[in-house]
This record gives sequence, structure tokens and C-alpha cells, in this order.
Amino acid sequence: MIVPPHPAAGGPAASATTSRVPIRVRFAETDLMAIVHHGSHLLYVEEARVEYLRRRGARYQDWIARDMHFPVVDQRVRYRAAARFADELVVLTWVGNVTRVSLRFDYQILRGEQVLAEAYTTLACVNGQHVPRPIERSVLDQVLSPETCP
Amino acid sequence: MIVPPHPAAGGPAASATTSRVPIRVRFAETDLMAIVHHGSHLLYVEEARVEYLRRRGARYQDWIARDMHFPVVDQRVRYRAAARFADELVVLTWVGNVTRVSLRFDYQILRGEQVLAEAYTTLACVNGQHVPRPIERSVLDQVLSPETCP
Amino acid sequence: MIVPPHPAAGGPAASATTSRVPIRVRFAETDLMAIVHHGSHLLYVEEARVEYLRRRGARYQDWIARDMHFPVVDQRVRYRAAARFADELVVLTWVGNVTRVSLRFDYQILRGEQVLAEAYTTLACVNGQHVPRPIERSVLDQVLSPETCP
Amino acid sequence: MIVPPHPAAGGPAASATTSRVPIRVRFAETDLMAIVHHGSHLLYVEEARVEYLRRRGARYQDWIARDMHFPVVDQRVRYRAAARFADELVVLTWVGNVTRVSLRFDYQILRGEQVLAEAYTTLACVNGQHVPRPIERSVLDQVLSPETCP
Repeated sequence: MIVPPHPAAGGPAASATTSRVPIRVRFAETDLMAIVHHGSHLLYVEEARVEYLRRRGARYQDWIARDMHFPVVDQRVRYRAAARFADELVVLTWVGNVTRVSLRFDYQILRGEQVLAEAYTTLACVNGQHVPRPIERSVLDQVLSPETCP
Repeated sequence: MIVPPHPAAGGPAASATTSRVPIRVRFAETDLMAIVHHGSHLLYVEEARVEYLRRRGARYQDWIARDMHFPVVDQRVRYRAAARFADELVVLTWVGNVTRVSLRFDYQILRGEQVLAEAYTTLACVNGQHVPRPIERSVLDQVLSPETCP
Repeated sequence: MIVPPHPAAGGPAASATTSRVPIRVRFAETDLMAIVHHGSHLLYVEEARVEYLRRRGARYQDWIARDMHFPVVDQRVRYRAAARFADELVVLTWVGNVTRVSLRFDYQILRGEQVLAEAYTTLACVNGQHVPRPIERSVLDQVLSPETCP
Repeated sequence: MIVPPHPAAGGPAASATTSRVPIRVRFAETDLMAIVHHGSHLLYVEEARVEYLRRRGARYQDWIARDMHFPVVDQRVRYRAAARFADELVVLTWVGNVTRVSLRFDYQILRGEQVLAEAYTTLACVNGQHVPRPIERSVLDQVLSPETCP
């Protein structure tokens, strides 16, 4: 086996709330192989994560004001098929794992029905001095709620 | 446990050949948290991988001419501490795993003695029709050899 | 005077056809000054140009198939005010200049009514050997036509 | 004439102090035309500008501490020939224009003797409230001095 299983390969749990975020591939995101550069996928899942939060009324800026910072401490992408210039992709996004001090967002990058890639990003919750701190209950509730904003 | 162990955490095997590639952080690679954006690390390890190969006389272009293409099929970065603008980093690079049809490059991104991140990228060997094909022995020998070019 | 006048400062000519392309600022596009990095504006106007063309049924891919390539030979951005994370921008896009062998796209990057930046990109028309060649009449007609695709 | 003259086309004045900054093209900086994407040139000249300053003992961070901020207010690149993956480029860098409240850095991006592109970036000097303020004499002297740091 070349590549170990990816946590997002099975898709979201039946109980998970999800968002589907459309992304159009930019010219600048391709490389000389005439496919989307593998680093661009991190831009897509970051945009999807921000939009996932926005649709639930959550904003990084507000969290920072409450001294909760969420740096990325781990991320992995498993690439299954190439994306190409001008493709209309959808990033299926959900929360795959929660601990007292971290959130793991899981993603499938889709073109139509095809899964082009699976990804996750794990965010730690830290205070302004980079010390781990518990995620407030209200934040967690918001993150795990269904979409409420258009 | 928030983050599973990363294959590169233990460093290179005693038998591994390694390269140390210096990288200077660019202004554009930072984000509004005033740290290096987590996507920039993929640029650093890609530059390190290309340089690792160059120091062994190997070039992607030559492989493509022999119908061996090496798309990235999997990558993971475990972030331990932030890199910052103008930091002088070193990417310690080695081959962490080899199969008949794939190579996994492992990396530690260092600032002085400190490990800022561990990373790997797995490259599959495919032909022009994206069908997996064995890596030629001469290519493997070159990839696993010590540095020969300045 | 610090900065010479920018061709797009006056906005589109009364006779020009225009497109308004929405762009949401990504986190990765910011820098440590907590504003959008000045290089990101090139991504925005490129996305806007592609979308301008798409809404007129034009695609780079089709042009290449007819041996018309359009490399960027000149670009300039005049920055008036900072864009910020999560801003919803609009890129007002039009063709500002046409010669026998080139097109200049002009842009204003807007946040609401405010002009954050003026930009242009000049594309030369060349064949596969990079020799300048006339833009076909049908291509020009398409580029200068009103929006037809949703 | 398709493209107006670029200020950096003539090269540095005889009296100008210059720096030559080497840059290796990264894989991720290419696009599907198999050339360096035109946006990547802004990364190169920014790296060159920072290195130009570093060789004169000047650092953005120190200027910020003295309430002098230098946002980019204008930039233009004139592209003459394509750069390609793994090219070893040199960015010839000098100060092309100075006013009481701004600096214009000029650049030629070279591959060997060939000029691939000419560029400039104009930086305004502002205080923390984004109000233009004079550049301190000591800063100007440093910026216009010859290289002193290795």
C-alpha cells in the first residue's frame, strides 16, 4: 500500500452537519504539468473552512477578540485525480473530530460526483501566548450547528 | 492525542542519505497572523526536493522524457512552531519510503536546532497515461545516492 | 507627483462593455501587515479577465487550438487603499485598448463604491513560435461584445 | 506601440548603487503554459528588494518600530521573455526615484545576459495612521548606500 487511509475518505458521519462550497480553479493555480498544483488544494480547503464558518455566523476575528486563536497544527491531502484550469469544484466540508483544545475539519474536493482529493486540517485552540486553552462551549455549538446564513 | 505521529518526526534513518537546503522566508509567504502561512511550507519542501535531486544529478525533465511522471499523491505537514518573515530556514530532506511504484520524501523544516515542522510528500510513478509503472532501477539508485553536485 | 496616472483611473469609456466579477479575499492572500498582499491583486484581475471572457463565450483553450496565444507582456497596478481578509470585492473589467496584435484589459478593484486599486494587463497575440500575429476578427468581436452567458 | 516604455528599461544610472540577487524558479511558480506565471515576478522583486535592504543593514521591522511604514502604492512589470522552471535568475535592483515621501525601486530580471523583465515598485512612506510622512534622512542614506553586509 502506497498511501495510508485518509480520515476523510469515508465522508461525513450521518450525524455531521456539512457545507458545500463552490470554487472555480484559477489560471495561476496550475503548474507546468497543466494541472492544479498540489499546494493550491490548501487554498481551496481554507476558503471552504472560512465559508463553512461564515454560514454559521462564526468569524475568526471574533474568536481572536475573545483570545481564542486557531493555528493549523496538522494537515494532510490525499490526491486522487487532477483538477484543471477553470474546473468548477465543490469542497464538501465538515468537522471530523473535536477535542477539548482542537478541531479537525475534513474535506472532500469534488468535481461533479468524482472525489479529486480528501483533506483535513487540524486547528489547535491557543491563547495569545500560544498556550493551549479549551474551546468555549458556545464556539463549539456554533461550529457544529447547521448552516444558518445564506 | 490531537495529532497522530508524523513519519518524519524521528528524523532520517542512520543509513539514509540527506540534503540540507537553505530557504529564506519571503514577505509574501506570511499571513495576517504575522507568521508564515501554513501553505507556504509546501513551497519550501518542494524547493528542497528539487534541490535534493539536483545535487544528485536528477531532474524531473529527464524523467518525463523517459515517460516517468511523479505526481504528488499524498502529503502531510505537522506544524510545531511558527516560522516568521526573513527567517533563514533549513529543510532537512531524505527518502523515507520506497515502493516499486512510489517514493516518499520526508522533511524536517528547521530554524537552527528547532524543528518547526515535519512533512512528507509521496510521489507515484506513472506513465503519460497516468497508469502506475515501476520506477527504473537507475532512477532509484540516483535518488538514494549521496550528494554529488555542488 | 509620486505615481503617474493610471489608464484605468478614469473608468471605462461610455461605449465600453464591462463585467463586474465578485471576489472574496482569502486568508492566504493577506500578509503580515494584516492587509492583502499587493501580489494578490494580480490573481483577482486574472480571475476577472477569465470570467469576463467566459460570460462572452470565449475561452483561452479554444484560442490556443487556433494557434492564438495571449501571454501577458505588461501589467501595472496602482494601489489606493488596502483590501482586507474576507472583504467582498468586485472587479470592474473592460477592454481599454486594442491593437492589431494586442489587447489591454483594464480593471478597477472595488469594495462597495470605493476604488481600492486600478490595474491593467496587456496581452500580446502570438503563434506557437511566439511570433506576433493578428487577432482574428471573430475573436475581437467576441471580446468586445456584451455579456451573453450567465 | 503596444507597450509604453518602462522606467527600468535603461538600467541603473551610472551613479546608482545596485545589488544582484540570485533567485531559483520554483515548480509552483509555473503555470499551464509551462512558463513562470506573470504574478511570480512580484515575488522575485520583493525578495530582491528585501535582500537589497538587508545588504545595507536595513530592515522593514526597524522602520516600523520608528513609525515608518512602506506600503506598495504602484508597481509595473514589463515582460520580455518567459522564465522557466529551475531557471537561475538574477534580479538587478536599484533605487530609481526618490521623493520626500516615497521610494521607487527598479529591477531587471535577468537570465544570464538576457533581460526577461523590467519592473518597479513604488513605496510610500506613511505613519501608523496611513498619513504620508517624510522619509528620515538616515533611512534614505542607508537605502542609497553601497552594499555593506555579505
